[in-house]
Amino acid sequence: MATNRIRLAAVQDKVMPVEQAVQLIKNGMVVGMSGFGGAGDAKSVPLALAEHAKNHPLKISFVTGASLGNQIDGKLAAAHALSRRMPFQADPVLRKAINSGEVMFIDQHLSETLDQMRHHMIAKPDIAIISAVAITEEGYIILTSSVGNSAGFVAMAKQVIVEIDHTLPVTLEGVHDVYAPATRPHRGPIPLIEVNDRIGTIGIKVDPAKIVAIVENHIPDTPALMTDPDADTQIIANHLIHFFEQEVAAGRLPENLGPLQSGVGSIANAVLAGFETSNFKNLEMYSEVLQDCTFHLIDTGKMTFASGCSLTVSPKYAERVIAHMDQYKDKIVLRPQEISNNPELIRRLGIIAINTAIEFDIYGNVNSTHVSGTRMMNGIGGSGDFARNAHISIFVTKSIAKGGAISSVVPMASHVDHTEHDVDILVTEQGLADLRGLAPRERARVIIDNCVHPDYQAALNDYFDRACAIGGHTPHILSEAFSWHDKLERTGHM
Amino acid sequence: MATNRIRLAAVQDKVMPVEQAVQLIKNGMVVGMSGFGGAGDAKSVPLALAEHAKNHPLKISFVTGASLGNQIDGKLAAAHALSRRMPFQADPVLRKAINSGEVMFIDQHLSETLDQMRHHMIAKPDIAIISAVAITEEGYIILTSSVGNSAGFVAMAKQVIVEIDHTLPVTLEGVHDVYAPATRPHRGPIPLIEVNDRIGTIGIKVDPAKIVAIVENHIPDTPALMTDPDADTQIIANHLIHFFEQEVAAGRLPENLGPLQSGVGSIANAVLAGFETSNFKNLEMYSEVLQDCTFHLIDTGKMTFASGCSLTVSPKYAERVIAHMDQYKDKIVLRPQEISNNPELIRRLGIIAINTAIEFDIYGNVNSTHVSGTRMMNGIGGSGDFARNAHISIFVTKSIAKGGAISSVVPMASHVDHTEHDVDILVTEQGLADLRGLAPRERARVIIDNCVHPDYQAALNDYFDRACAIGGHTPHILSEAFSWHDKLERTGHM
Repeated sequence: MATNRIRLAAVQDKVMPVEQAVQLIKNGMVVGMSGFGGAGDAKSVPLALAEHAKNHPLKISFVTGASLGNQIDGKLAAAHALSRRMPFQADPVLRKAINSGEVMFIDQHLSETLDQMRHHMIAKPDIAIISAVAITEEGYIILTSSVGNSAGFVAMAKQVIVEIDHTLPVTLEGVHDVYAPATRPHRGPIPLIEVNDRIGTIGIKVDPAKIVAIVENHIPDTPALMTDPDADTQIIANHLIHFFEQEVAAGRLPENLGPLQSGVGSIANAVLAGFETSNFKNLEMYSEVLQDCTFHLIDTGKMTFASGCSLTVSPKYAERVIAHMDQYKDKIVLRPQEISNNPELIRRLGIIAINTAIEFDIYGNVNSTHVSGTRMMNGIGGSGDFARNAHISIFVTKSIAKGGAISSVVPMASHVDHTEHDVDILVTEQGLADLRGLAPRERARVIIDNCVHPDYQAALNDYFDRACAIGGHTPHILSEAFSWHDKLERTGHM
Repeated sequence: MATNRIRLAAVQDKVMPVEQAVQLIKNGMVVGMSGFGGAGDAKSVPLALAEHAKNHPLKISFVTGASLGNQIDGKLAAAHALSRRMPFQADPVLRKAINSGEVMFIDQHLSETLDQMRHHMIAKPDIAIISAVAITEEGYIILTSSVGNSAGFVAMAKQVIVEIDHTLPVTLEGVHDVYAPATRPHRGPIPLIEVNDRIGTIGIKVDPAKIVAIVENHIPDTPALMTDPDADTQIIANHLIHFFEQEVAAGRLPENLGPLQSGVGSIANAVLAGFETSNFKNLEMYSEVLQDCTFHLIDTGKMTFASGCSLTVSPKYAERVIAHMDQYKDKIVLRPQEISNNPELIRRLGIIAINTAIEFDIYGNVNSTHVSGTRMMNGIGGSGDFARNAHISIFVTKSIAKGGAISSVVPMASHVDHTEHDVDILVTEQGLADLRGLAPRERARVIIDNCVHPDYQAALNDYFDRACAIGGHTPHILSEAFSWHDKLERTGHM
């Protein structure tokens, strides 16, 4: 079994028990690990490391593609094994350690991590831990359900541990397209023009001498938990589909809309699922995470091709998709996140980006990360890569949260991840605000009229009117701008 | 004289007095005009339009490359001729009209305007007014001291008015490189790999039938007003040069640093001028505005090539540079702003971006546009194009303003144009904060220690300490976050 997957003779003697491999990870190291959106994580090694750290205290700087499954981040945080973490996370235990100031979290645009390492902005990994379905005779590491930052980690780390993942089939070979931008200067264009172009190799070419350990893994990816679309997310999807129909009718968008990007999570998933009952055909995706909805649209013939950097599917889809990968190989591709999220390609392709907001303000500045401006949820992820450079940048959220105690539309965003310059369309279940070509005062009018829950509309109008009476291009009353958040913290209700 | 410059026979009969040309501009039109950083504006037509509007009220939507000279914006605003203005301005009269809500100002990333028009996000110009030194026999409009958005305006407008500028020599022919990205879908890479690559044509190819008027212009560009470096800007420059020396010594930057971008204005100009006394050689620039310092560095042999989209020079340099353009043609090129500011190229080239902040906060969020979060100064300009996609994103400002009444470092930026994700280095005369790879709490420590004026250091430390005691990834006390701005508005002093 093992030799079937480890076809490179030169490294077959590197197979070792996970307890032995873990000892290669030393205090103070920068560890680069595969994993994006809970897919394609290395698992046996980091989980063993968390156990090991209980009795052998150590601190590492831990870099991945994005969030991890199997409570890996939580267990490492609980073992106090993390000094630094980048570029994204979504674990409740780690989140607590970040917000308490124990773990230094560097919340990065997901396209940037590898280029920052490559060009000496941040430290390169001392060791890489890479999840693979196989190592080929030619010396390619064949990745699993995500590509993330793995190729860059292998290229830049001094040592590489490979986890051979026996829970995923070798038929994944051929689904990845591994390409790295050249080191500057004299970097050329990235030669990708269509979403289904293949520009790289099927795996990561590795110097066999770098492989210091191979570990067999039998722990599966944590399946994505998707809540089904509810009435509100359905209405948000309908608003968006209606908008797209109008754009096509007016000749402003092509019939298939152009490549779609969709953020992670239930709302974004529900929005994309809304395309199923639409009249749109030949849809294409150029996104980070391929979720259930992607495969649903492919299966129903609505979508012709999807490019991503990870497969984050629920159990219902995992079997269908992973087990029948051969049927999908001409319809999907998994790329490194520096390619899936690359500003050069996002601008060139003209992507329609749909991401989720925690809150936005009356001028359209979006907070996607911090509760009440202070407490980190997950991170900015790829939303900034897409929003800044997309053809149309859309943010969606429900107009209220916590049964109405919180308005998602506030006088001023308590943390700004996306400035008004990068936000074209806002959608809640109340309606859609088309902000293109509008000045701040006009944006406020459209946002308050279309997106705000009726319970908060009068108060926002009152704030806006009083601010306008004082004046300014972006009228605000700074002494009141956060009064809603302040009241929430004090009383539990805005 | 005129026929010398109007070499295209088919349009020679379109020469007319400016008073006649002005009547082609109708109420409600979208007018696209050349001009960037007070260079290469059309002048006779807009100034005549401002006169005309006094007796013939009209409102236009006015789009340029960036800011204009000759008080054009102010005179149009005073005549109440502007309903909308984009994507940038720097005129005190227009600023007042914007802040009062009379003129709707759309403050845009300067790389985006043409792509938004091309792909139907905002209205295309009904009429374009283009400043030119000549129209060639082959039908090329040869631009003057800026390229800006002129090529796109000519391509997309129904009608074109050309202003033949007799104040600028025809030797400018050959300094421009006009290239437009293809309309999507199926857009290819922009084939630029080195800063001195030429990828386009020497002028704007125009359908002669579109040219509805040619006007002779004898009003010169308004010369840039540059204040000489003062002690503080000199110290800021020194901090930056020292940082660059360290980066090169550590092998993190190449010996010539890579392509430099520098924002407009006296501080940025002083910073670049600081390179003169440094040991750096073979410097290259890939920027928007080529200012005095650019030519000074070329003249002194420090800089080998500079790519920009406008020539904004003071009278001292204007004569030397403009009159001797033949000597500079192999050392500079002027490109459309959608190429000079293109995210694809900024990321590919690995640009070091140096821009000016109005204020920044303890976590490194930068406000470059709004005084006290409400009143627009000029606009975001190209700073967002560069900061998001640059290799190193640097912001500079003096630590205090108005004789110490204002601290440029505040608890929370009152308006966010550049989020902490896009800000790597901050410099004041107090020192330099290297924020690369740091988490927010670490960023705050480095910023307060290095960049803050001593008069405000204790108060910022106090705010930060109390915020940290409450907790959060980005600790803030929302009820106090704007107390400094609030006090400033009430008492004139932070």
